[in-house]
Amino acid sequence: MSRLRMGMIGGGPGAFIGPVHRIAAELDREIELVAGAFSSDPERSRKAGESYRIEPARAYPDVATMLREEAAREDGIDFVAVTTPNHHHLPAVRAALQVGLPVICDKPATATLDEAIEMAELVASAGLPFALTYTYSGYPLVREMRARIAAGDLGQIRKVIVEYPQGWLAQQAEGKQAEWRVDPGRAGIGGCIADIGVHAFQLAEFVTGLKVTRIMADLGAVVPGRVLDDDCQILLRFENGARGALLASQISVGERNGLRIRVYGEKGGIDWRQESPNAFALYHLDGRTELVQAGDPGLGAAAVAASRTPGGHPEGYLEAFANLYRDFAKQLRGEPGSLVPGMADGLRGMQLIDLAVRASREELGWIDFPA
Amino acid sequence: MSRLRMGMIGGGPGAFIGPVHRIAAELDREIELVAGAFSSDPERSRKAGESYRIEPARAYPDVATMLREEAAREDGIDFVAVTTPNHHHLPAVRAALQVGLPVICDKPATATLDEAIEMAELVASAGLPFALTYTYSGYPLVREMRARIAAGDLGQIRKVIVEYPQGWLAQQAEGKQAEWRVDPGRAGIGGCIADIGVHAFQLAEFVTGLKVTRIMADLGAVVPGRVLDDDCQILLRFENGARGALLASQISVGERNGLRIRVYGEKGGIDWRQESPNAFALYHLDGRTELVQAGDPGLGAAAVAASRTPGGHPEGYLEAFANLYRDFAKQLRGEPGSLVPGMADGLRGMQLIDLAVRASREELGWIDFPA
Amino acid sequence: MSRLRMGMIGGGPGAFIGPVHRIAAELDREIELVAGAFSSDPERSRKAGESYRIEPARAYPDVATMLREEAAREDGIDFVAVTTPNHHHLPAVRAALQVGLPVICDKPATATLDEAIEMAELVASAGLPFALTYTYSGYPLVREMRARIAAGDLGQIRKVIVEYPQGWLAQQAEGKQAEWRVDPGRAGIGGCIADIGVHAFQLAEFVTGLKVTRIMADLGAVVPGRVLDDDCQILLRFENGARGALLASQISVGERNGLRIRVYGEKGGIDWRQESPNAFALYHLDGRTELVQAGDPGLGAAAVAASRTPGGHPEGYLEAFANLYRDFAKQLRGEPGSLVPGMADGLRGMQLIDLAVRASREELGWIDFPA
Amino acid sequence: MSRLRMGMIGGGPGAFIGPVHRIAAELDREIELVAGAFSSDPERSRKAGESYRIEPARAYPDVATMLREEAAREDGIDFVAVTTPNHHHLPAVRAALQVGLPVICDKPATATLDEAIEMAELVASAGLPFALTYTYSGYPLVREMRARIAAGDLGQIRKVIVEYPQGWLAQQAEGKQAEWRVDPGRAGIGGCIADIGVHAFQLAEFVTGLKVTRIMADLGAVVPGRVLDDDCQILLRFENGARGALLASQISVGERNGLRIRVYGEKGGIDWRQESPNAFALYHLDGRTELVQAGDPGLGAAAVAASRTPGGHPEGYLEAFANLYRDFAKQLRGEPGSLVPGMADGLRGMQLIDLAVRASREELGWIDFPA
Repeated sequence: MSRLRMGMIGGGPGAFIGPVHRIAAELDREIELVAGAFSSDPERSRKAGESYRIEPARAYPDVATMLREEAAREDGIDFVAVTTPNHHHLPAVRAALQVGLPVICDKPATATLDEAIEMAELVASAGLPFALTYTYSGYPLVREMRARIAAGDLGQIRKVIVEYPQGWLAQQAEGKQAEWRVDPGRAGIGGCIADIGVHAFQLAEFVTGLKVTRIMADLGAVVPGRVLDDDCQILLRFENGARGALLASQISVGERNGLRIRVYGEKGGIDWRQESPNAFALYHLDGRTELVQAGDPGLGAAAVAASRTPGGHPEGYLEAFANLYRDFAKQLRGEPGSLVPGMADGLRGMQLIDLAVRASREELGWIDFPA
Repeated sequence: MSRLRMGMIGGGPGAFIGPVHRIAAELDREIELVAGAFSSDPERSRKAGESYRIEPARAYPDVATMLREEAAREDGIDFVAVTTPNHHHLPAVRAALQVGLPVICDKPATATLDEAIEMAELVASAGLPFALTYTYSGYPLVREMRARIAAGDLGQIRKVIVEYPQGWLAQQAEGKQAEWRVDPGRAGIGGCIADIGVHAFQLAEFVTGLKVTRIMADLGAVVPGRVLDDDCQILLRFENGARGALLASQISVGERNGLRIRVYGEKGGIDWRQESPNAFALYHLDGRTELVQAGDPGLGAAAVAASRTPGGHPEGYLEAFANLYRDFAKQLRGEPGSLVPGMADGLRGMQLIDLAVRASREELGWIDFPA
Repeated sequence: MSRLRMGMIGGGPGAFIGPVHRIAAELDREIELVAGAFSSDPERSRKAGESYRIEPARAYPDVATMLREEAAREDGIDFVAVTTPNHHHLPAVRAALQVGLPVICDKPATATLDEAIEMAELVASAGLPFALTYTYSGYPLVREMRARIAAGDLGQIRKVIVEYPQGWLAQQAEGKQAEWRVDPGRAGIGGCIADIGVHAFQLAEFVTGLKVTRIMADLGAVVPGRVLDDDCQILLRFENGARGALLASQISVGERNGLRIRVYGEKGGIDWRQESPNAFALYHLDGRTELVQAGDPGLGAAAVAASRTPGGHPEGYLEAFANLYRDFAKQLRGEPGSLVPGMADGLRGMQLIDLAVRASREELGWIDFPA
Repeated sequence: MSRLRMGMIGGGPGAFIGPVHRIAAELDREIELVAGAFSSDPERSRKAGESYRIEPARAYPDVATMLREEAAREDGIDFVAVTTPNHHHLPAVRAALQVGLPVICDKPATATLDEAIEMAELVASAGLPFALTYTYSGYPLVREMRARIAAGDLGQIRKVIVEYPQGWLAQQAEGKQAEWRVDPGRAGIGGCIADIGVHAFQLAEFVTGLKVTRIMADLGAVVPGRVLDDDCQILLRFENGARGALLASQISVGERNGLRIRVYGEKGGIDWRQESPNAFALYHLDGRTELVQAGDPGLGAAAVAASRTPGGHPEGYLEAFANLYRDFAKQLRGEPGSLVPGMADGLRGMQLIDLAVRASREELGWIDFPA
């Protein structure tokens, strides 16, 4: 069975997420990176192509050229991966969909809510597979938690705490990765909320299967001189009445990538941390505490399918990311079982950013989340 | 040097906190329990006296009798410890102060804010030592964090997260300990917020040395049929502009007594958990993470004074509680160095309860905390 | 019910373990320290008495005086607690038993095996209660592990790993606590093996209910100039054929008091650490991992009886030590249920020291442990 | 730059380690799997080729055919990866070296010491790159520990504890992975010692840079009916006099892949666990404890080079394995800086197995390790 051929937009020299997409896509040998418009600077795109060891002729100077020339090849690309900063997502997605190529795109969907609404319309009318790489939904034990909650193991969900502390923006931003994230022109109206808050939000909805219906938000720009928020505190209410809190921060000195979710129901609770992703605590109403681990015989099909090594052989971020690509490949091949997030999650993420920024700025107290 | 003589109000058969006060008071042999009005039922008071192994004649049928008869003795009590449910605090404190006895009282100060205001006036006019047993401020490493923050080790404080999850009220309350806490007639207007939320609040102010100036509160009664809140989420703003969140819950299945505080400043961060109280993580801006532990040579005077064993010999809840009594004994002897909380903390705790209940019920968004 | 009256031998100024005995003995108000021969220097004994706040006349200049004068009092001591360095244990125990007083003594039993044999004879012929404070057998969860193993929960035991790393003697010994422990004249022939190795050994036999029958020992004096061993590695074989290892060290920089035991059987395994004493991991053959915690509803009678606070309120070293005193008090009152170690454990500990030192020095390979 | 072309021997259907080699080899796009003799059964080899998505014609029925046909191609394989059970290593390595192909081979080197000696001679005379996949030496933080110890950060090394507990063979072996490991005909004379003991041994020597010079071994076959050892306890002495212990087990119910190493020197200590591979504890003589984590600014060049994601984005087993392949690729390209183990480690591993089995069987006590 031949591999699916991927063309990347973005991911040029110095990029963090481009190489991650490349590794994730290829990990299971179902996909191969064969082409790219890695940078808007042709020379940088060429250099990136070299570093990815693809055929030199397929490192294109711009998106339009890539789409045109690949369309002309027998072995042209089967889909596009968009790994640029947020404000370039919409044009890249639009161009790919227009030539009939499915798209997998980094999160958040876009830089603004208006763009996201437009993107949602494009995706809907194109009728092509479209995925968003909300990475953390790819972890095996995240999928296990989701399955157990869906099966009712925790009973009615009552309380959700999702946190995402980081510390890397505790000082003035330096370096390519930091700079665009704190620049409204490139990141959009949200800083921390757009970069990691949406991850936490998506995780909470993904794991619980519940939609947020109201929020009370407090976003702040803590580091002097910063325009976009670098710390977010949002109280949540879910569709079933469950209560919740979302705490995300990029000024929490010492925190690395501390995404964590706790969910409590009538009958039990769970606690999972991204930095130790191969286990979660499972609390029972009778007082027992279990540690559920990757490789345990009792795991469900989704977790098993998302694991590549036996218990005790830790898997991490790249493997989780690869699970999203594997799901996307399933969609491309018309197979069932994909759990990779799509445009619906993307739109909700942009709504969250828009609502939270506004609610916080205007001190609105509780506000409703659009259905 | 003879021991200080303590008379207890409350702490009758079945009580949790009475025996804790007894152990804590006597741990360092500076104080001795000699008398008590342990219950409003004379027979139960007598039985409690027996279980505490005090002289039978000094297990009194009521507070007034105890105060009168002890006053008549050469070796009468030197102070009173109040360990009753909240709604009995004010009359007990009033009675003791009126006969000139210092008081150490369990938290929160009272059942209502009005009572707390009255109590504050009584304490102020009595001019006698008065302490409130906010237990967690007695832990050696809590005091170490406080000292380091006061010394500027973290720089300007920017963010505080204090959590207090418990799960023991996830079902209909059963048993003496649970029942009074969910009964407005005995606990006051606050449930979770009054039982544990005030602990978290006091800890945050104690450790940071900063006062909260605004809150945005979301309290809920999650378990069907419950009147008082059993889950609290409160966003905080501190006097220096620092942002914060307080999450307390009694319906988080599987959580025991998960008090935890994280404080992030310009130059570093800390993370402490009550269930592993003999260490905290210390984060440095340069990326280093330290684990500061009881017994470390670098600890300050306050932490050293509050420890009784060498590093690696765990101390716990009772020892922390005993530190409050040791501090109180210092006050009674007119010595400096006490860190035990007093009426000021008590009043702020009651203000928090009052504000949070109101703000949540009326969905007020941000409201100011009285200065 | 009046309290049992304790006279202490040892525990003078600067002592670590004397005050620990005092707190432990009194924690439950069943015992009261009333007298002591705290030091062989009368002035130091007097000062210690002052620090313990006992009646000045009952701080005696020597053991003989204490035993004589207390015997003459109506309210004389009911038993003796021996807390001196090892080489003073035997004379103190002998003197107390001779006047008909029960004894609780610190571990190891004596400084030499010959002394231990003599002590065993004295104890046997006296027919009085005699206890040794192998502290760690007092932890509630240690007793829970013991009960579960005795009940067959792990099936046949196959493997035991007991470790006790410390680092405080990684440099030349300084201070009173260190100096006597590295001095053969006061500590005996064993250094690390006598100070902490015997604790690990006793814990292994206590928890598993199995006796060691063979050992292969490797003791070393790592720090230059040291005479006694400061690091021990011993392979074990138990009476049922189970395999084991005992690793104790006082030169492991950074380790505090890292006693840990792991036991694996046919049907499960356990893992407990003294520095987090309120939980242990419980492994099931079907792959499930449980965290068993203090306060869990499923705990057995022994663990429940040994706990004073609800789950989540950590108890520690002093409380474990107090459980030994509570057990000893039971023996004094003729009540059943005591789990405090006695002379049998003391003798086995001294045999271990003797055998391990000899086997290591002469490189004997496997040698038999006396039945 | 084109990719290096790999041919695999072994790794047929049901294999665990074959797919791991494939992912590891390709993770960085420096190597591509293009051919294989995946099984001695031609049909199974064909199926495996299909699952790896290689060109059908290059899934060969046997090793000889692969080597011959690949040699005839312009784009023939550049090296061979051997992933078979132990007793097939030597013939596979011999065949590859004979046709001038470098080899990367799974550990342990061979099934017997004699084979290893022959293999060492073959490798020496071939003068071609040869690597052994002692996986755990590929972890970034393992390399960081090695660099720090080499730099003298811990001072003179005094004590090493390396453990490798597993529980998966606690019952009668079932399944392909288990069966060959407990069969002397396929695994060799060592069971647990050959499967995981050598990993622990190699890690200890790799991290400390010290050779073991003496051992005292106790191997056992715990599960009834088992011929090969399933539990090992070995005391170690290193060339500088440092003391050590190696504990490996496959009958420790509940343990997954608990490789852990602790090293203590004059000036500090370290503690690393494979199941949480992205951090290690660093102990300082002054009492400070640091947690050194992947992504920390203070890490050395070797750790940085071996990491692919920023701090907080966990990397695991596959990434560690990939670091060995990346090193091997460096060797193939004639670049410096490789840390992948080679034949010297392989030979020492086989000596360990041979010595430990003999010493244990004959109860020899201390025996010397060949220089």
